[in-house]
Amino acid sequence: MGHDALKQSVWQANMRLVEAGLVVLTFGNASGVDRRAGVMAIKPSGVEYETLRPDDIVVLTLDGGGVVEGGLNPSSDAPTHLVLYRAFESIGGVVHTHSTYATAWAQAGREIPCFGTTHADLLHGPVPLTRPLTPDETAGDYETETGNVIVERFRRGDLNPDHFPCVLAAHHGPFTWGATPGEAVEHAIILEQLAAMALRTLAINPDAAPISPSLLDKHFLRKHGPDAYYGQKR
Amino acid sequence: MGHDALKQSVWQANMRLVEAGLVVLTFGNASGVDRRAGVMAIKPSGVEYETLRPDDIVVLTLDGGGVVEGGLNPSSDAPTHLVLYRAFESIGGVVHTHSTYATAWAQAGREIPCFGTTHADLLHGPVPLTRPLTPDETAGDYETETGNVIVERFRRGDLNPDHFPCVLAAHHGPFTWGATPGEAVEHAIILEQLAAMALRTLAINPDAAPISPSLLDKHFLRKHGPDAYYGQKR
Amino acid sequence: MGHDALKQSVWQANMRLVEAGLVVLTFGNASGVDRRAGVMAIKPSGVEYETLRPDDIVVLTLDGGGVVEGGLNPSSDAPTHLVLYRAFESIGGVVHTHSTYATAWAQAGREIPCFGTTHADLLHGPVPLTRPLTPDETAGDYETETGNVIVERFRRGDLNPDHFPCVLAAHHGPFTWGATPGEAVEHAIILEQLAAMALRTLAINPDAAPISPSLLDKHFLRKHGPDAYYGQKR
Amino acid sequence: MGHDALKQSVWQANMRLVEAGLVVLTFGNASGVDRRAGVMAIKPSGVEYETLRPDDIVVLTLDGGGVVEGGLNPSSDAPTHLVLYRAFESIGGVVHTHSTYATAWAQAGREIPCFGTTHADLLHGPVPLTRPLTPDETAGDYETETGNVIVERFRRGDLNPDHFPCVLAAHHGPFTWGATPGEAVEHAIILEQLAAMALRTLAINPDAAPISPSLLDKHFLRKHGPDAYYGQKR
Repeated sequence: MGHDALKQSVWQANMRLVEAGLVVLTFGNASGVDRRAGVMAIKPSGVEYETLRPDDIVVLTLDGGGVVEGGLNPSSDAPTHLVLYRAFESIGGVVHTHSTYATAWAQAGREIPCFGTTHADLLHGPVPLTRPLTPDETAGDYETETGNVIVERFRRGDLNPDHFPCVLAAHHGPFTWGATPGEAVEHAIILEQLAAMALRTLAINPDAAPISPSLLDKHFLRKHGPDAYYGQKR
Repeated sequence: MGHDALKQSVWQANMRLVEAGLVVLTFGNASGVDRRAGVMAIKPSGVEYETLRPDDIVVLTLDGGGVVEGGLNPSSDAPTHLVLYRAFESIGGVVHTHSTYATAWAQAGREIPCFGTTHADLLHGPVPLTRPLTPDETAGDYETETGNVIVERFRRGDLNPDHFPCVLAAHHGPFTWGATPGEAVEHAIILEQLAAMALRTLAINPDAAPISPSLLDKHFLRKHGPDAYYGQKR
Repeated sequence: MGHDALKQSVWQANMRLVEAGLVVLTFGNASGVDRRAGVMAIKPSGVEYETLRPDDIVVLTLDGGGVVEGGLNPSSDAPTHLVLYRAFESIGGVVHTHSTYATAWAQAGREIPCFGTTHADLLHGPVPLTRPLTPDETAGDYETETGNVIVERFRRGDLNPDHFPCVLAAHHGPFTWGATPGEAVEHAIILEQLAAMALRTLAINPDAAPISPSLLDKHFLRKHGPDAYYGQKR
Repeated sequence: MGHDALKQSVWQANMRLVEAGLVVLTFGNASGVDRRAGVMAIKPSGVEYETLRPDDIVVLTLDGGGVVEGGLNPSSDAPTHLVLYRAFESIGGVVHTHSTYATAWAQAGREIPCFGTTHADLLHGPVPLTRPLTPDETAGDYETETGNVIVERFRRGDLNPDHFPCVLAAHHGPFTWGATPGEAVEHAIILEQLAAMALRTLAINPDAAPISPSLLDKHFLRKHGPDAYYGQKR
């Protein structure tokens, strides 16, 4: 009864973030959605990972954000996750971290150029970056506005969230998503890798060029879409 | 009998510094204070962490610095800790490390600009930096003078130690503090993270700008102060 | 019965890649060859390392690339490995990773200069870099063409694959090889080390010079060739 | 019977190098000396650390370098160690690694400036760097000549090996020493830390200045010499 399977998968995703070294202390959160039930499950706010249990996961309604299961406050970033689930209808999991290399790009105010195939395997172009929030947006419903500028960036760039499963929130850090909470975690791991590689690429050659459109298409499409041939069954 | 609870919490804080990868060999120390009893407890000098036991923690009087419990010499940095506890009356724990990224900023003679929300979650502006000691101060009561220039930096900048729980001692390394020894350790962990991120931010964009005052206020105040809403019960 | 010994050694090599920190998620693959039997064994595509078993290793014919043992799809990079085994007749194992420093050099479009003896112990000059693939090559039999440009680079530079057991595929990442799958893994580990050191060498001194021909010869030849005297029995 | 205590301490020092992350594969070696017995003990050449046993440690005469115990070839770097023990009469242990940051400075051809107190705690000035070997020295008795240019650097600079327990061999990597093999390992660990910090210091501020002579003296002398007061009993 209730949302045990969803809470279990969200709990596992949060624990895997720690194992992957993407979070320190309580910085970071993973969520999942059950669209049929109309709910989102997310990590509680500020709880240490070592004591986190599946039953601590908080369940909210997808439309209103009211708590329907759980005795703890949801992550303060919950409103951002809700905006993403509402706008990007195909996604089933969202992850937010302050992983160091991806966050450095967000702080530097730079999109991450696609310098190689590790990047092209994950997304179909540069890692997008939001505009900074205005003072009014920051002072208002800050976490909701953080979601709004992400959606705005995708609308403005005509970006498909299935082809671009990540974004950098300016001066803040990365958000990633996927079909499941587990896939969102994997995307967070890959994003951190390609962010580190891109920084090092520029350290070796400040004039390094992005990969060609043909190689970008090849790698992205061998993993995604109708003609994908990577893996066992996609 | 004695100060067992204090010694236990100081011992735990010292061990956690090692687990967090912030110290190598015997570089680094954590202390705690019991203001009612008028004592400070601190790691002994030059003792290896793997053999360190709670009973090895040395207890000193807060006013005079005389040893009241423990058979080992206190950390040579004890006088610096004593100065901080006397000047910053709200703090309950102090940590000193040579963690590599924070120390690199101290060696570079640069305050760490606030480039993002990870930083703004911890402190309300750039990480302050002391002036170098004069030759006379260095040749004199060196460790006490190290504390004095930290306090001088806070007085000069009118900085509230509750809003700026860390400092860089020029050419030396970071000191952090908090309500407890454990919180001082957490602040040392976060400081090292934001120091690494700031270096990488500049590597990507040497002209990166600090975050806006509105975002700085938002993040600092959502974790601290009367309107904080992060976590479970602040 | 079958190719159990080959599959076992290929499985061990793949697991060692993970232990050495050279792969994240499923990025990377090791293969081995049995030239007498005319077969190559390689990791299956997109299978997680923690569930990978020796029996999952896929065996292909060396000439045609048809599967002769195993129920899973071979790594999508299998055609690249096949080209290398056919062209470089002395090698017995091949490894491909996206290890971060070596990949950064590949993305930067730079050969790795030989700055020191760690490098000279592995190979007899700079780490070679392929040209980028043309759009036609990319759109065609991409993985085979990746092998072809590696072989082209060695033919053009008159490089002996026994003296240069590694290459950077432009915008992609490193391939290494050796007498056995295990040796190919060791070469991948060393390559990542020297790639990291070379980046840091340039960070300290952008005008750093490669080592002298005499020191390059000395170190390479004390480990390789008829007068080698490093180790116990070479 | 034999030199079991010496072999045991040399074996422990070699194993600790691995635990400290200073060596990959078989790159690196630690040795110790028994001056009364006139022998040096050192790691065998090219043996993997996981199978290394105390009985594998090779014992050589200090004057002639002939093997007196052990069935394996000594490290190919043994002649360098012998030169150091003969020239620096107070030392009891020597360590050589290719640790990545110290090696990067050696490859960059730069002495490591003393940017802070972590450095000043170990040595009394910049980390010295040898000149490159000449082609004749390289082609001749290479490992002995490597020791000779280290000694030459100390004679030329009038450096006391007790005050400078480390050196960078140009284009090669660091050597460290101490009163025991264990202390030589500790110095290798600290050297790698300060090498990393110094690189990062320059990344933050390319014009960073070394510490003042007064602070250098203070930190070095609080750990070393007749007025030292760090630790429990020096």
